[in-house]
Amino acid sequence: MFTAATNIRVKYAETDQMGVVYHGHYAAYFEAARGEAIRSLGITYRDIENNGILMPVVELDIKFLRPAHYDDLLKVVTILKEWPSDHRIRFHHEVYNEAGKLLTTGSVLLYFINAADKAKTKMPDLLATQLKNAFPSIINS
Amino acid sequence: MFTAATNIRVKYAETDQMGVVYHGHYAAYFEAARGEAIRSLGITYRDIENNGILMPVVELDIKFLRPAHYDDLLKVVTILKEWPSDHRIRFHHEVYNEAGKLLTTGSVLLYFINAADKAKTKMPDLLATQLKNAFPSIINS
Amino acid sequence: MFTAATNIRVKYAETDQMGVVYHGHYAAYFEAARGEAIRSLGITYRDIENNGILMPVVELDIKFLRPAHYDDLLKVVTILKEWPSDHRIRFHHEVYNEAGKLLTTGSVLLYFINAADKAKTKMPDLLATQLKNAFPSIINS
Amino acid sequence: MFTAATNIRVKYAETDQMGVVYHGHYAAYFEAARGEAIRSLGITYRDIENNGILMPVVELDIKFLRPAHYDDLLKVVTILKEWPSDHRIRFHHEVYNEAGKLLTTGSVLLYFINAADKAKTKMPDLLATQLKNAFPSIINS
Repeated sequence: MFTAATNIRVKYAETDQMGVVYHGHYAAYFEAARGEAIRSLGITYRDIENNGILMPVVELDIKFLRPAHYDDLLKVVTILKEWPSDHRIRFHHEVYNEAGKLLTTGSVLLYFINAADKAKTKMPDLLATQLKNAFPSIINS
Repeated sequence: MFTAATNIRVKYAETDQMGVVYHGHYAAYFEAARGEAIRSLGITYRDIENNGILMPVVELDIKFLRPAHYDDLLKVVTILKEWPSDHRIRFHHEVYNEAGKLLTTGSVLLYFINAADKAKTKMPDLLATQLKNAFPSIINS
Repeated sequence: MFTAATNIRVKYAETDQMGVVYHGHYAAYFEAARGEAIRSLGITYRDIENNGILMPVVELDIKFLRPAHYDDLLKVVTILKEWPSDHRIRFHHEVYNEAGKLLTTGSVLLYFINAADKAKTKMPDLLATQLKNAFPSIINS
Repeated sequence: MFTAATNIRVKYAETDQMGVVYHGHYAAYFEAARGEAIRSLGITYRDIENNGILMPVVELDIKFLRPAHYDDLLKVVTILKEWPSDHRIRFHHEVYNEAGKLLTTGSVLLYFINAADKAKTKMPDLLATQLKNAFPSIINS
């Protein structure tokens, strides 16, 4: 299992007239957190794209338990529970406020595709190599 | 069952560097379509808020089947399959492009809450009255 | 002079916790209105891009006179006061609410550039041909 | 003069199909930078709102010199050149990329208004007290 966390400060732009973060913005919070999770491995999603692989989102699921507010410093956790199979990789996310309350949970399924022909492909070695350390059973197999 | 459809023109602002609509924007597309669906009943979500009821989103699920592109005129369908139970109402959404291809499906669960004390409440009569015509079995019961 | 108008319904996503449209969203309102203005000429901005010309925004100026609110049906006017010179085209915008009150004014300066080499270029014939009817003095010159 | 800087990582959500940050997102970048600038003084914009003062944006001017790209770590500078007069406060902003290139400049004019009656008001003492240290001539006057 691989886990990483990043902090995100809520912008005024992200609130709505209910006085809370508009639900649609969590997709971008998750994206930012995934990006930082990959960076913590020593590579970046930009590197992956530069190597000819795109990772479009194909499923998004979010449960909103408690609202986030303007200027909250959110902790967004990214969890990779399982080694990616075939062309799929699923990240789980949890959002906490500064008081440690769980506000939101979600998961995002992405595909690995070749930028050139848009065909599904397996996880690029660039990412697989970095991820192996986080999955000891993979290294030993 | 209650169904309504609305058209949404994709803005440049909504595309990303993959050349498609960024996945996070579908939440707002669904919201706009729900708003038009309610308007087609003869009331508006603004009316509902003005009557002291808020409808926060508590669950969002989306499957992205095919990408939408800049300037596409999307048809976003809103479907209410079941009569709301207690404080919950679930809308289903389908997004089609001009060629009639299904691009995206999703569902959104919202709660009815009192603006005053944020307590869960039942569907307001304002909405229930308008919805009854779309659910003949409800009228007869 | 060339003028066109389009209607935009304010989404909940576009409001902020002041209960009004967040100021940053007007850029996308203007963009949508420009797109419809070009469409009213019989071509689209997508056509222009497909012909190898990009039109990046290089200046944006907005004055916010009165707020817009959720569910307002805004009328966004696009005005081209002067025939584009060299690689520049400046659109003026005005936003009105349903009561006819002027809410916002702004202007957007864009460049014509070649997608291939990003070099500045003159207005493409595709657009110039359509615009000429709106500028009688140009036709006669 | 008061100056502060903050870093903002560009999200995929903020790019468009030109492969650069969509121009409309700079308004939120500026807002985030202003918020951090105020925080650097020892208070927050949230504190100001909690004290009954709102600060709506009334003018926004941006010049886009060079594009920002996905995953760029932008440095957004906030500059208060003049002591606020009456109900007005104008912030200047500059955006730099990691190579130190100036990408964008802009200014934002905001009003101080009372949340209660929406009337224009002077800068709240909460902010004025903190700002004085940055304007020696004000302290001495």
